Amino acid sequence: MPETMNKKMIVFTLGKLLMVEALFMLMPLLVALLNHEKTGAAYGIVFIGTFLIGVLMGHKAPVDRTIYAKEGFFIVGVSWLLLSFFGALPFVISGEIPSFVDAFFETVSGFTTTGASILSDVDTMSRASLFWRSFTHWVGGMGVLVFTVAFIPLASGRTMHILKAEMPGHIVGKLVSKVRVSAQILYVIYAILTVIEILLLLLGGMPLFDSVLNSFATAGTGGFSMTSAGIGLYNSPYLEGVITVFMILFGVNFNLIYFFLLGKILPVLKSEELRGYLVIIALATLGVTLNIAPMYHSYMKAFRYAVFQVASIITTTGFATTDYNLWPMFSQTVLLLLMFVGACSGSTGGGIKVSRILLLFKSALKEVKRLLHSRSVVTVNYEGNAVAPKTMNTIHGFLVLYSVVFIGGLLIISLENLDFHTTFSAVATCINNVGPGFNLVGPTGNFGFLSDASKLTLSFIMLVGRLEIFPIFILFSKSFWRG
Amino acid sequence: MPETMNKKMIVFTLGKLLMVEALFMLMPLLVALLNHEKTGAAYGIVFIGTFLIGVLMGHKAPVDRTIYAKEGFFIVGVSWLLLSFFGALPFVISGEIPSFVDAFFETVSGFTTTGASILSDVDTMSRASLFWRSFTHWVGGMGVLVFTVAFIPLASGRTMHILKAEMPGHIVGKLVSKVRVSAQILYVIYAILTVIEILLLLLGGMPLFDSVLNSFATAGTGGFSMTSAGIGLYNSPYLEGVITVFMILFGVNFNLIYFFLLGKILPVLKSEELRGYLVIIALATLGVTLNIAPMYHSYMKAFRYAVFQVASIITTTGFATTDYNLWPMFSQTVLLLLMFVGACSGSTGGGIKVSRILLLFKSALKEVKRLLHSRSVVTVNYEGNAVAPKTMNTIHGFLVLYSVVFIGGLLIISLENLDFHTTFSAVATCINNVGPGFNLVGPTGNFGFLSDASKLTLSFIMLVGRLEIFPIFILFSKSFWRG
Repeated sequence: MPETMNKKMIVFTLGKLLMVEALFMLMPLLVALLNHEKTGAAYGIVFIGTFLIGVLMGHKAPVDRTIYAKEGFFIVGVSWLLLSFFGALPFVISGEIPSFVDAFFETVSGFTTTGASILSDVDTMSRASLFWRSFTHWVGGMGVLVFTVAFIPLASGRTMHILKAEMPGHIVGKLVSKVRVSAQILYVIYAILTVIEILLLLLGGMPLFDSVLNSFATAGTGGFSMTSAGIGLYNSPYLEGVITVFMILFGVNFNLIYFFLLGKILPVLKSEELRGYLVIIALATLGVTLNIAPMYHSYMKAFRYAVFQVASIITTTGFATTDYNLWPMFSQTVLLLLMFVGACSGSTGGGIKVSRILLLFKSALKEVKRLLHSRSVVTVNYEGNAVAPKTMNTIHGFLVLYSVVFIGGLLIISLENLDFHTTFSAVATCINNVGPGFNLVGPTGNFGFLSDASKLTLSFIMLVGRLEIFPIFILFSKSFWRG
Repeated sequence: MPETMNKKMIVFTLGKLLMVEALFMLMPLLVALLNHEKTGAAYGIVFIGTFLIGVLMGHKAPVDRTIYAKEGFFIVGVSWLLLSFFGALPFVISGEIPSFVDAFFETVSGFTTTGASILSDVDTMSRASLFWRSFTHWVGGMGVLVFTVAFIPLASGRTMHILKAEMPGHIVGKLVSKVRVSAQILYVIYAILTVIEILLLLLGGMPLFDSVLNSFATAGTGGFSMTSAGIGLYNSPYLEGVITVFMILFGVNFNLIYFFLLGKILPVLKSEELRGYLVIIALATLGVTLNIAPMYHSYMKAFRYAVFQVASIITTTGFATTDYNLWPMFSQTVLLLLMFVGACSGSTGGGIKVSRILLLFKSALKEVKRLLHSRSVVTVNYEGNAVAPKTMNTIHGFLVLYSVVFIGGLLIISLENLDFHTTFSAVATCINNVGPGFNLVGPTGNFGFLSDASKLTLSFIMLVGRLEIFPIFILFSKSFWRG
């Protein structure tokens, strides 16, 4: 750790975080008890161990509670590794996922809301573990650190740097002046929306357990299913409709949802990102519907599958109601591209994010103008404001480093010597936190057959994608360690 | 045409250009006469027609010979369409490529130095047409407009804007103060190097006709072959070695070659781009050699195939000595990535270019530093100079618009409903002006089976790639037509 960092505060924060994770494990423990499952013992043991370590690290509040950018990035990077490590232990101890690498992959995939699985037979898992898997989506979507900031007394204000590093999207606005209160509001909205989805699914006849888990997976834009048939199992247009609407909703910037709930409609209507997001969904749905209609001999049926799949992929949830591997290449390409687009900033979704894509596109078009009139000064306008060159630099840097990680991942996974579609989509689905890819890693496949090296590489790529590239590069940079 | 443009000068320049193209056609005509081929008639007819149209347009020099950026971009965009249109006519008239779309694709592929072919049986083509095909590579590599500027009296100095738009790479330095003299020097060096390659191939026992055509294809980094067996036909390590060295040489910035010939070694040694280019070639060759060695049961043989293929792809030539479709996925992925890297700025090669990639990477790393120390001012240094923010903006804009074209192409070609590897690599090989891709469009395949819509799309993409994106976007921009 670099000399100049506030080590005590880092240890303290990470300790609190482990205590929170331990407490979370009481939920699967309860599920195990209710269902008389032996798996409960594993959750009990890991609860005790994790909580004790957490107490050891976090019992004494340091005098200097300052957290600067440096500490923020460090805490975020390390905390996600710690969470995944401890979160994987119950799978290993219970014997349900005997290999630690497999369990780690599954847990990283859960927390990062990817939803890629190594399980070939999810139907044989205990309910406790199914619950834990889906719950990691829920808490990972909004962020465990954001949760900790919201509900555990840490510091008296200087926690913005943690939120900035953990929240998806390049623009993180505080809802209210106090960071802690903002985090609380976010989690309350998040919880309420999740409960509404659960109720609506129950109304449609989905069993309670399934409703809760599917709502966790929708809210976090995760996509783990508790059956190998996925959402297709229920074969209900109503349930698919509810999930589609909620997937799209959880892909929207939570600030906008907050404004909407306060009755402030103007910022919602004025949001270029929201408009862009909805337009992309509409166009992609239209294209896919027309493309797959001949397969289903019905525009209605084609639309039903198309809108669900488009919403599932652009929000990076990764649910499937049909095997889209069988769709024509055009539809498959649309879905692949949507993986990269991703949802809106400040949502639980992954990918590059609609706002970044809009800004990249606007900035490039300005460049066309500038080349033609070399003396003109051109600034990019977005959501009613001029965009600072600094912001554009950061987004361009994001794009380049994102590409570097993607290319590195592609080269490593290509060593598996699989077909190109599998290779490419495996990396794409992990860096964008989607879940399923195409071919061997498509909606009917899984990641279990890959080597340990590939699984660890993809775990790393999921984390890099979830934390949006920079924190990881910063942890590996010379200027970080030089102090 | 926008009101404010110097229309007379545009017509005049395009007329001169057509006259030049007509004169070029005397060469295949001569080849036909020497070989007693009937195809000669087609070249004769098109020579007369093109020359007359050229004279009609270019006989009267306008009083105002000013060419600004606007005119420059317009001339470049339109001239490449005109050249390809007239260049395709002999194939159609001779009946050797009956479909105009096919002939257009083949000619665009020639001039843009792509080397992707619609011909399934190149061995039955007349020598005249084989010559013409390969010659389009040679003149397209350095630029027909650059040729016209160099050797036809056009204007008295204001031709820089044409060169800027046509020359590959983002940094076009004049070699000497006069643009015209610079263009002449470039073409003289280019011609001398080509002649040296011809002589060295002759020395290795390659027939004269083959030596000339293969040298044209190497010099322009084009890759058309006059036999379906490609360079593998000769099965000679010496000939492969000569071609490898010259492919790498023609991928180097010609300014550096000029300095080198003048005895100025320092700028050559100091060039970060050259170093980067050679390091990438070395690493890729090493990786591919190790990866394919088990296939060939020999490191020597693996190295021979690897270095040839790596040089061929990174320089975007597209020659092949073996069917690399059969190589393991890792090597195929390395080759695919090299297509995007491309050669150096100011060479005849395509792709994104090493210099742009270095600058993108450097700029992104600076961003990592800036996020950590938010007050520090960070500038990117390249080849000993601070890079202006304007330059970085243009390169970032290039990357984004390049991606837009790539994605658009991917969506259109995906409508062919082919496998993903074919679809993706067809677009990649065309936008980067390489030639062959993978699977159906791999080194043993061709583009003939695609629909006319796809062939026209890929022709457009080859042109956009060759002209490096901006000129085409400018021609389609609102601010261009508003005047």
